[in-house]
Amino acid sequence: MMETIRIEDADDPRIAEFQAVRDRDLTGRGGRFIAEGTVVLRMLAQAHRAKSGFVAEKLLLLENRVSGLEDILGRFPDDVPVYVASSAVLDRIVGFHLHRGVLAIGRRAEEPSIADLLQNLPEKTLVVAAFGISNHDNIGSIFRNAAAFGADAVLLDAACCDPLYRKSLRVSVGSVLSVPYARTGTMTELLDALMSRDFAIWGLSPAGHVEIREVSPHPQMALITGTEGEGLPAHILSAVKTARIAQMPGLDSLNAATATGIALYEIAMRQGRL
Amino acid sequence: MMETIRIEDADDPRIAEFQAVRDRDLTGRGGRFIAEGTVVLRMLAQAHRAKSGFVAEKLLLLENRVSGLEDILGRFPDDVPVYVASSAVLDRIVGFHLHRGVLAIGRRAEEPSIADLLQNLPEKTLVVAAFGISNHDNIGSIFRNAAAFGADAVLLDAACCDPLYRKSLRVSVGSVLSVPYARTGTMTELLDALMSRDFAIWGLSPAGHVEIREVSPHPQMALITGTEGEGLPAHILSAVKTARIAQMPGLDSLNAATATGIALYEIAMRQGRL
Repeated sequence: MMETIRIEDADDPRIAEFQAVRDRDLTGRGGRFIAEGTVVLRMLAQAHRAKSGFVAEKLLLLENRVSGLEDILGRFPDDVPVYVASSAVLDRIVGFHLHRGVLAIGRRAEEPSIADLLQNLPEKTLVVAAFGISNHDNIGSIFRNAAAFGADAVLLDAACCDPLYRKSLRVSVGSVLSVPYARTGTMTELLDALMSRDFAIWGLSPAGHVEIREVSPHPQMALITGTEGEGLPAHILSAVKTARIAQMPGLDSLNAATATGIALYEIAMRQGRL
Repeated sequence: MMETIRIEDADDPRIAEFQAVRDRDLTGRGGRFIAEGTVVLRMLAQAHRAKSGFVAEKLLLLENRVSGLEDILGRFPDDVPVYVASSAVLDRIVGFHLHRGVLAIGRRAEEPSIADLLQNLPEKTLVVAAFGISNHDNIGSIFRNAAAFGADAVLLDAACCDPLYRKSLRVSVGSVLSVPYARTGTMTELLDALMSRDFAIWGLSPAGHVEIREVSPHPQMALITGTEGEGLPAHILSAVKTARIAQMPGLDSLNAATATGIALYEIAMRQGRL
């Protein structure tokens, strides 16, 4: 049996990070974040074991979920406390009815520099760079698609929102914890870093010059994407090769998640990685 | 100048359908629905003029939006009343701060039968069928992707949610008003209707037999998709050809919108329609 610590008082300081969980995010406070649900919990356990820069600090579970989760719980080191509470206490802690009853606090212990991240990539590599994306759903989707199509890293400029936000992490189905990433610097700095390493860099845009299926394969490829409405700024588009996804004329552009999904799928196919 | 009717009283019965708009949906009440925002308003005007089965009943606009919308407003017939209100009155009507200030009530005047819908398709045709999708976002995304890649119709079984729900319509960027669709019957009934017309029918599934890029083109193609978690039921998958989207092993399946987007893009490409 798993060793658990029972919480009877919603104000117990040991579980303070979980209080009123819906109204706040922990991001920005020393790299801490909230992981919700079984799938993300499993990814956190994997990331912790892999020493990939993420650690689990504590878990809080609905008491009747524990037996069904033994398998995942066993993957966390013994010094990560597992708090359990009744449904009534748990709802008081988090401030609403937490149906799924699975929460954890994680921390990003190390954030790689762009140089470190790019140095550690395999020879045949695919990187996604995203600029200025403040929508939590879209950031999460980029990671989910990056994982699905085997991208090796995600680069975010400092104007992107933190992918460890609760909603982004959930939408990513935990992929934020598995796909190596950095979030730092300006667009120009990230672009310079890619250019100095001889990446074939493709900016995704409805006005792109090359249809995505015609993009030539290259051992080191980077796909750049901007916000859903505005897209990539002109000074970026003029500095890189540009690709479009064929679609019917006269319509709004594709949803950002769908567009990066299609582009990553096509490029991964061309690189022979699927 | 556009003729408008000024509303001073939030309880004015002429604009009763807009009251507390966030807490309810009009769907189910005689086919009425709420259109929000400039893009959807433009699609509603087009649908009304095209006599495609949708009519606009009334508009409610923030007073300072009117002059910027003259172009779209001019496309509605003169007998569609355009109500305007100050920001304070509008917020009282709808029950929250309506930043964009553009609302309309539309009505689906005619709902085609499956037979009518299939009868009116072009010779080279692509149809999307979706079964059991209750997520409003996913229904909206299916329409957005269907429009982007030129699908000729969407078939929904009766277990799908109504695509005229506020959120679905918004996520579809108004495509629910432009892509012909029916929502009726069981999965088996819809499948029978497609089979009796010699469609090449492909069910989308992570366990599909053929990778989506290897699907053979056919003049009449139907792509079937199920819910994000469960997918299509076994009895459907055993009755049709099945296609998968290549992805890295051991991961969750793709997001439903991304998966249908990739599949539609590939099939539209193979049919030579993009």
